[in-house]
Amino acid sequence: MNVTIIGLGLIGGSLAISLRHHGLAQRLIGVEENPAHARRAMELGLVDEIVTDLAAAVQQADLVVVAVPMDAMVSVLPPVLDAATAQQVIIDVGSTKQALLAAVADHPKRGRFVAVHPMAGTEHSGPEAAVAGLFEGKTVVLCDTDMSDPDAVRVVEQLFHALPMRLLYLDATAHDLHTAYVSHISHITSFALALTVLEKEKEEQRIFDLASGGFESTVRLAKSSPATWVPIFRQNRLNVLDVLDEHLHQLQHLRDLLEREDYAGLTEQIQQANHIRKILP
Amino acid sequence: MNVTIIGLGLIGGSLAISLRHHGLAQRLIGVEENPAHARRAMELGLVDEIVTDLAAAVQQADLVVVAVPMDAMVSVLPPVLDAATAQQVIIDVGSTKQALLAAVADHPKRGRFVAVHPMAGTEHSGPEAAVAGLFEGKTVVLCDTDMSDPDAVRVVEQLFHALPMRLLYLDATAHDLHTAYVSHISHITSFALALTVLEKEKEEQRIFDLASGGFESTVRLAKSSPATWVPIFRQNRLNVLDVLDEHLHQLQHLRDLLEREDYAGLTEQIQQANHIRKILP
Repeated sequence: MNVTIIGLGLIGGSLAISLRHHGLAQRLIGVEENPAHARRAMELGLVDEIVTDLAAAVQQADLVVVAVPMDAMVSVLPPVLDAATAQQVIIDVGSTKQALLAAVADHPKRGRFVAVHPMAGTEHSGPEAAVAGLFEGKTVVLCDTDMSDPDAVRVVEQLFHALPMRLLYLDATAHDLHTAYVSHISHITSFALALTVLEKEKEEQRIFDLASGGFESTVRLAKSSPATWVPIFRQNRLNVLDVLDEHLHQLQHLRDLLEREDYAGLTEQIQQANHIRKILP
Repeated sequence: MNVTIIGLGLIGGSLAISLRHHGLAQRLIGVEENPAHARRAMELGLVDEIVTDLAAAVQQADLVVVAVPMDAMVSVLPPVLDAATAQQVIIDVGSTKQALLAAVADHPKRGRFVAVHPMAGTEHSGPEAAVAGLFEGKTVVLCDTDMSDPDAVRVVEQLFHALPMRLLYLDATAHDLHTAYVSHISHITSFALALTVLEKEKEEQRIFDLASGGFESTVRLAKSSPATWVPIFRQNRLNVLDVLDEHLHQLQHLRDLLEREDYAGLTEQIQQANHIRKILP
């Protein structure tokens, strides 16, 4: 299968590595509008060729993967579908779905598109961030598959089964709600934690000296790029605001318990938080 | 050197493994008031012997390590010092220092005690949580060393150099302030994040399905025990409240930017948070 990947960053680049590693792509064509990233992707061997003309790159592929930030996704996907034939399959790998699916709802080739979200990533970005094994063993969400042609869905299912990934089917509304709860909020808390520590701890050397694994793990996502995350927060704004309000409420509650020295209450809340152990052992 | 470790949990148990591994302890004696933990520590080979009488356990040791939760620490350390001779060295491994140092400030054997905080841990607790290599390469803070006898400080310095750990000297006030900023707040945010997700996401299977490495890393500390953390928050209450107020302010600010769709402002805040990359590469 020939695969065109549009956007050779963390996700597009890592998928290129996985597809090649598992023999799922014979030829990999890249489209990357940042010339330095395009050059680096070739140097790293992520793709066999860079094609600058979008329609030409689409036409050479059996499968097209659109792996650009969510704001660009909404504008790139329609011309990709314009250029596609009835034999080709187009997927995205984006973190929000409702806005994207609305943008192509009436497209005459909507059926060739399958909305895909592999639940994997790191705090790094760009082609340098591409790593082997990012997707293997993780969950991939397929959204609103009843809006896609059955043969296109089949191609995508076989592909991700082969990586292998666990397939999960959600409608776009449920996807955006649940990812706000389980993924997007983590990034907000981590950004806020980094801002907090940078604001309070004026001695940067002290952060370096005293940071243990625990701090590093909670603040890791704060290294993530705004170019990736602002469009996600924007497209999933209401769900993110909703879970963020709950988070503010929970933090305020912990603060109040500590303020009034209710240590029994604090213990009870932490025991309740510990319940996450049962879900994520 | 014979070493007595009082409290065979994550920290005490892991230190036992490290001391033995580096040939720094010839004989390891354990004191553990939880009988199941004492038995398990013996089965795991963490110590050579369990001694139930505190004074007897102290008398057999060249070095005594007090590794109990911070609330117990304040009551265990004075009788340990009572039982100690002028040749023995006593250390704690606790996460807060001001309350503990105040509790022994006037003790006639204060000089035999060196206040120590190895900046390492995991979200697990009990003897089962003890792991090899927890401390190696990390930072250990020595507090108020001018209040300890120089020979006792020398023993402790040589010991932690040999593990090896990086030694950092802070007074107790600075220690409690900086650890609130860099360590204690991370636990609060993680507990609050777990409570948030458990409150919003009523479908626990969805948390399991959709949790990626990012969520797991920000929520990991929420698995930590209240028996460890409530006493830390209690003893460092004012510093923790101070940094928690800043964190609430930062989260509220991110929320307001998203609420009024100020995406330039949100981008700027995330760029500022990204500065943590330079401190923790």
